Amino acid sequence: MFGSPGKKSGLILRIGQCFFAAGSIVVMASASGFSTTTAFCYLIASMGLEVLWSFGLACLDIHALMYNKDLHNHIIVSLFVVGDWVTATLSLAAASSSAGVIVLYTRDSRICKDEIKLSCDMLQISIAFAFISWFLLAISSYVMFWLVASI
Amino acid sequence: MFGSPGKKSGLILRIGQCFFAAGSIVVMASASGFSTTTAFCYLIASMGLEVLWSFGLACLDIHALMYNKDLHNHIIVSLFVVGDWVTATLSLAAASSSAGVIVLYTRDSRICKDEIKLSCDMLQISIAFAFISWFLLAISSYVMFWLVASI
Repeated sequence: MFGSPGKKSGLILRIGQCFFAAGSIVVMASASGFSTTTAFCYLIASMGLEVLWSFGLACLDIHALMYNKDLHNHIIVSLFVVGDWVTATLSLAAASSSAGVIVLYTRDSRICKDEIKLSCDMLQISIAFAFISWFLLAISSYVMFWLVASI
Repeated sequence: MFGSPGKKSGLILRIGQCFFAAGSIVVMASASGFSTTTAFCYLIASMGLEVLWSFGLACLDIHALMYNKDLHNHIIVSLFVVGDWVTATLSLAAASSSAGVIVLYTRDSRICKDEIKLSCDMLQISIAFAFISWFLLAISSYVMFWLVASI
């Protein structure tokens, strides 16, 4: 099945999640003035969790691919499902809360135009990366849940 | 199974979703100064969608309970799953984006203390209702997805 653990498609999804989550952290951390807003700090924390989780599972996928191991065990996949869903929910919440704040900064008020110290473009790129990363994680989560229900 | 369509537990979940989503809209709409922030308007729209969706499914549950009909049909449950997941994702995004803005208003800045026109307590209650409503919808979504995978 596409995206299941121990498959190349699953590994590509995990690497994509890792890449975009790490990109989101790097861009956010290099944007000036992000630390004064709780939502942006929470985004970094949540993306950090996603990097750790996806990197761990990517390593497991590589191990399974190299030694031709089968990861379709009910207990292993159940653990993956819980971790995937918790991480995906936290990522979506973090990306959305940051998006709410950036819309407030750019559209509802003149904060982005008036405060030159705040790099709004960087913040927007970081949030876009977070959403892409969440979307890839959501695909993995659905596949995992489907596997658990059908094993 | 707990919370599946055409069962009393499923009906209670749907009524709970409807109640808290409607409560969130009423409290938000009666809070002064909400309309200047896009995130709060999006919360109302998203909760409106959830009220419509959950009310429709509650009516279907009542119909199934009254005439003792079986709703465990693959096509019907698949439609419910897609609707449930789209609504749940939009609700979580709306609740989180509003939460991001309210944290900015209360903790990161002095907007809530300085602007008397903005009723921050009401906004917080509305967001809390939205999160409860999302949580109930998430339970329904998982049950539906489990049903689709196991039918």
